[in-house]
Amino acid sequence: MLATVLHGPGDIRCEEVADPKILKPTDAIIKLSASCVCGSDLWPYRGLQEARDPGHMGHEYCGVVVEVGSDVKTVKPGQFVVGSFCLSDNTCPHCRNGFQSSCEHREFMTGAQAPYARVAMADGTLVATDTMPSDDLIPSLLAASDVLGTGWYAADAARVQPGCTAVVVGDGAVGLMGVLSAKQMGAGRIIAMSRHKARQELALEYGATDIVAARGDEGVAKIRELTGGVGADSVLECVGTQESMMQALNAARPGGSIGFVGVPHGVELDGQMLFFQQKSLMGGPAPVRRYLPHLIDLILTRKINPGKVFDLEVPLTDVAEGYRAMDERRAIKTLLRMQ
Amino acid sequence: MLATVLHGPGDIRCEEVADPKILKPTDAIIKLSASCVCGSDLWPYRGLQEARDPGHMGHEYCGVVVEVGSDVKTVKPGQFVVGSFCLSDNTCPHCRNGFQSSCEHREFMTGAQAPYARVAMADGTLVATDTMPSDDLIPSLLAASDVLGTGWYAADAARVQPGCTAVVVGDGAVGLMGVLSAKQMGAGRIIAMSRHKARQELALEYGATDIVAARGDEGVAKIRELTGGVGADSVLECVGTQESMMQALNAARPGGSIGFVGVPHGVELDGQMLFFQQKSLMGGPAPVRRYLPHLIDLILTRKINPGKVFDLEVPLTDVAEGYRAMDERRAIKTLLRMQ
Repeated sequence: MLATVLHGPGDIRCEEVADPKILKPTDAIIKLSASCVCGSDLWPYRGLQEARDPGHMGHEYCGVVVEVGSDVKTVKPGQFVVGSFCLSDNTCPHCRNGFQSSCEHREFMTGAQAPYARVAMADGTLVATDTMPSDDLIPSLLAASDVLGTGWYAADAARVQPGCTAVVVGDGAVGLMGVLSAKQMGAGRIIAMSRHKARQELALEYGATDIVAARGDEGVAKIRELTGGVGADSVLECVGTQESMMQALNAARPGGSIGFVGVPHGVELDGQMLFFQQKSLMGGPAPVRRYLPHLIDLILTRKINPGKVFDLEVPLTDVAEGYRAMDERRAIKTLLRMQ
Repeated sequence: MLATVLHGPGDIRCEEVADPKILKPTDAIIKLSASCVCGSDLWPYRGLQEARDPGHMGHEYCGVVVEVGSDVKTVKPGQFVVGSFCLSDNTCPHCRNGFQSSCEHREFMTGAQAPYARVAMADGTLVATDTMPSDDLIPSLLAASDVLGTGWYAADAARVQPGCTAVVVGDGAVGLMGVLSAKQMGAGRIIAMSRHKARQELALEYGATDIVAARGDEGVAKIRELTGGVGADSVLECVGTQESMMQALNAARPGGSIGFVGVPHGVELDGQMLFFQQKSLMGGPAPVRRYLPHLIDLILTRKINPGKVFDLEVPLTDVAEGYRAMDERRAIKTLLRMQ
């Protein structure tokens, strides 16, 4: 099959690779309805993170099961499924505690920017829908696999409560999903920090009540002004740099909470600074599996439309353009259509 | 009056100083029933923290009001009061959110190792008892001022819940109060990390179910063994070093919470490490004022006996011996009796 392979920084290709096959009796093979490019794919694409070279890219997926291993019990060929980018057994103590992204047997999905993919620990990872969803819902269901689930976790880790004031740092796809999630959780005020018009507009559509274009100290000063000098109850950090982390910490009120989901790159936090900030800090890879049933339900009942975050669609063969557009910030998030 | 003054590292004296007086209409003057030496007093005593030289020491206090400023409304001369080591107005947004230790007008108490002390923002800081408590309760009420309130906050920030497994890192007075607090909050299992026999015994008396004498990686391995390989739901970090912080992080399970109340000295945390640890981190100076009414009630009804943490009593004139005994770990905590 033709699939996406990263050969080195900036060198992403759609090329012939071996078809995936069942390797363990707990595996499933799915035919993807669509795939997409993640902001985190840009780290190795930009050469900012060591990549296994050449790497089969893609960790977001939904589609139809075509084959299952002999031990798989909860999904079967013909079913439509959505899975998390973190593969988990969903039975270990960490999974039972709701942290499937720290599963004792955790693996990270790879090779999903392709027509077919192998999903390990299928029973623990995949959630099947009762019926085949209509085509127009595919982008939203695909978003649930990572970017929506991650935005949801950011809001959850930031302890968004009904009526609270939430700030979202980062206007990438995850940040925008954070806005949507905070809205669903009942935040009374949602301040999106964004300086890009198209993203500001989508943030407003997803429920942002205020937009702050300023960054750093100036941005924090603006947050303080908007919150009567107090700071926000909840801050969703969706970038992963030292600057964005400090912006998030400084935007929260004492006793407030920061959920950080941007994978930190070069971030160092001083213990005494954290102590006197007196704010709760919780991050990590999102336990999407915990949220999937609820998110799928919200999508199938058309209460949310996370799929709007895809503002570029290209066929899988044009995956290089899909990466380029996101790298150059011409696109928020690229959807890859299978032929 | 004779009071405690730190002249430099290791040079603590009881010497004549000016009597405190009302400086602002919101001040109160109290006659202390007792005072004590805090673990945090040892940082400047050991020369590990810059001290204002000479410094009037002491921030833990309870006693009888002898004079109030013209604006003070909630306490009056003759009343017995307990206050927090953090002075707060108890009306600003941070105070109303329960974080009086981040009050917009926060001051830190000083000069309480003395027969009399000035308490700023008396209305916001002091809590009066209905009647004069009996003498034997004074040590416990004094403990509520900081060390008990701080242990309580550690358990609260570590999100101790009924039935949970809690680990306490640090067997100083705050760690022991953390054990007591976790017990009060219903923890099902409380593992105290301590290598000192007297402290182990007090930990067991306060509710610890297990003692782990090992530290560092060996200690963490023991915690994992005791928790079936999972880690603890809640960890109370009561030391403040890089080693103790890493021990606390590594002892918690994914999704677990660390409450850190040891003032960090030389602690640096890597962002990506925190991300993949996937644990909630919350610390800071304890908002003792929030907890005081409940803690005072627990003490007056004799449900808890935090005063047992004082294992050395000296008259104020022997304050130097009180510091020395704690510095050399001959005493857990020194109570200073007024003449």
